[in-house]
Amino acid sequence: DSEGFTGEDDGEVTEGKAIYMVSDGTGWTAEHAVSAALGQFEHCLVNRGCSVSTHLFSGIDDIEHLMEIVKHAGKEGALLVYTLADPSMAASCKKACELWGVPSLDVLGPIIEAIGSHLGVSPLGLPRGAAGRKSTLSEDYFRRIEAIEFTIKQDDGALPHNLHKADIVLTGVSRTGKTPLSIYLAQKGYKVANVPIVMGIELPKTLFEIDQDKVFGLTINPVVLQSIRRTRAKSMGLAEDKSSNYSEMDYVKEELEYAGKIFAQNPTWPIIEVTSKAIEETAAVILRLYHDRKHKYSMPRISKRY
Amino acid sequence: DSEGFTGEDDGEVTEGKAIYMVSDGTGWTAEHAVSAALGQFEHCLVNRGCSVSTHLFSGIDDIEHLMEIVKHAGKEGALLVYTLADPSMAASCKKACELWGVPSLDVLGPIIEAIGSHLGVSPLGLPRGAAGRKSTLSEDYFRRIEAIEFTIKQDDGALPHNLHKADIVLTGVSRTGKTPLSIYLAQKGYKVANVPIVMGIELPKTLFEIDQDKVFGLTINPVVLQSIRRTRAKSMGLAEDKSSNYSEMDYVKEELEYAGKIFAQNPTWPIIEVTSKAIEETAAVILRLYHDRKHKYSMPRISKRY
Ligand SMILES: Nc1ncnc2c1ncn2[C@@H]1O[C@H](COP(=O)(O)O)[C@@H](O)[C@H]1O
Ligand SMILES: Nc1ncnc2c1ncn2[C@@H]1O[C@H](COP(=O)(O)O)[C@@H](O)[C@H]1O
Ligand SMILES: [Mg+2]
Ligand SMILES: [Mg+2]
Repeated sequence: DSEGFTGEDDGEVTEGKAIYMVSDGTGWTAEHAVSAALGQFEHCLVNRGCSVSTHLFSGIDDIEHLMEIVKHAGKEGALLVYTLADPSMAASCKKACELWGVPSLDVLGPIIEAIGSHLGVSPLGLPRGAAGRKSTLSEDYFRRIEAIEFTIKQDDGALPHNLHKADIVLTGVSRTGKTPLSIYLAQKGYKVANVPIVMGIELPKTLFEIDQDKVFGLTINPVVLQSIRRTRAKSMGLAEDKSSNYSEMDYVKEELEYAGKIFAQNPTWPIIEVTSKAIEETAAVILRLYHDRKHKYSMPRISKRY
Repeated sequence: DSEGFTGEDDGEVTEGKAIYMVSDGTGWTAEHAVSAALGQFEHCLVNRGCSVSTHLFSGIDDIEHLMEIVKHAGKEGALLVYTLADPSMAASCKKACELWGVPSLDVLGPIIEAIGSHLGVSPLGLPRGAAGRKSTLSEDYFRRIEAIEFTIKQDDGALPHNLHKADIVLTGVSRTGKTPLSIYLAQKGYKVANVPIVMGIELPKTLFEIDQDKVFGLTINPVVLQSIRRTRAKSMGLAEDKSSNYSEMDYVKEELEYAGKIFAQNPTWPIIEVTSKAIEETAAVILRLYHDRKHKYSMPRISKRY
């Protein structure tokens, strides 16, 4: 979710302009939105023309804490974005920011307002942690956990006899991002299995026997793949001797061609180009296709009921 | 991220009020924000007083597609929320919505504007998929993938000799949510290991030898745990005979007491109560403590550099 993220806080982070994110909940909504918005400033973040530090304050549900943070933001010259479900907390935050000269933005209020008037219903006005909220023991809760546990067990070609139980099956050569992609999709509630394509190793028969509408191939530019494999080999401490041709260009190309032939033999599999896509972008492409194949809406979409 | 999510689209989703989410990117930012906002309407969603269907349209970067969606939204009487990085696309969207009588909300524009004036820099105005954007092959990209792969390998007490390599080690009895929590944290870039507490099985010595500041205990209400274990046993098709006392109340209580004793013997481990917390809420609590222990800021926060 935080694409532009470049440094964990290995010490007091003070350089650059500060953005404070304040939530009565986890803060992940504000973080996600800020991170997406920061993508629009990559041109100056990357070369440090305007380095930015973000500071997430979560679980802020009392006014004393909130005021302390606003004061701090004022001292640091920070921008403050907030998600506060209690309208009086949100109003206090806005007022205090004005008082202390802190530029501020309510990330949640406008959406709640728009949905409230759309539904003709008043919002609860209570933080997610407050008493009286829905239990997490919903069907959906169990479905997601099952998806994650299934996906972990099916990683890297394991248990090929279970492929038919998967919602989505990913296949591609090593380092096309099958594992992180599988996990990303699993978090969204999909059971995913991934099957590596390795030259000289036969693919499991079940891959061709299951519903072919759920199989997706991943492909990648050979130069980028080589660079990823080199980094991988280094981080695993593999020696750079000739016995390991895993990241050699000839081998990389040959393996991608081998995968390409398999893909050509299975024309129902959509082939997704992952080069220069973030995991969540590839996930979006796959889920769009997945739902499209399932429903054939006039306009491709992912629909959910709440 | 979609806490209130209750139904996958197993057919054309038409009942209830519609919310259209339109993005030139993945749509996950809009989905995350809408899902958090819908949490404020749980009181009527849950009992179906005002059932809602959301429809996500991703990768919308041309005006023709956009206009088609707006028209559709008009016909369906939908609310339309959008994240469009190109200001002219965002303006067209707004105008078209006015024209077709579609209530609309720009989720991204205000944040980009606030950050832009805070930094004194103009935004790119290009969708994330557009040419010229930062490559995903950043240090951070590799760090996250490594975290995910590490975390998968360390699931369920595997490879205890690797515990010292983890950033965070979770421990607790079966079904306290260690696995989904580990995966959630891994996606955020943390290497996580989880170690189950099972009566009659000794914990690995390494758990007590590693840096104790990174160990966290999970605990849960016994009634809730029993209900989770029952659901689990059913979904795994375990027979409900007496030989399996996994979900029997006496056993559940005894095992939680056993875990409680271990926690008491290791007072440096923070004990996190997970009952009625969503995974992402427990993750927020753990990360707040984790960063707090590491940095001892005057005010607990999670800081990042961009
Ligand atoms: N399930 C939920 N029920 C009620 N409010 C929620 C829910 N999820 C998120 N929120 C609210 O939405 C805002 C953002 O949440 P968070 O992403 O946890 O910081 C906070 O004000 C939360 O209180
Ligand atoms: N890394 C990024 N670079 C540029 N724009 C981004 C980035 N991430 C997200 N955005 C923009 O933020 C909005 C939300 O993105 P998404 O969550 O992918 O729908 C879209 O308008 C994207 O184009
Ligand atoms: Mg893998
Ligand atoms: Mg587990």
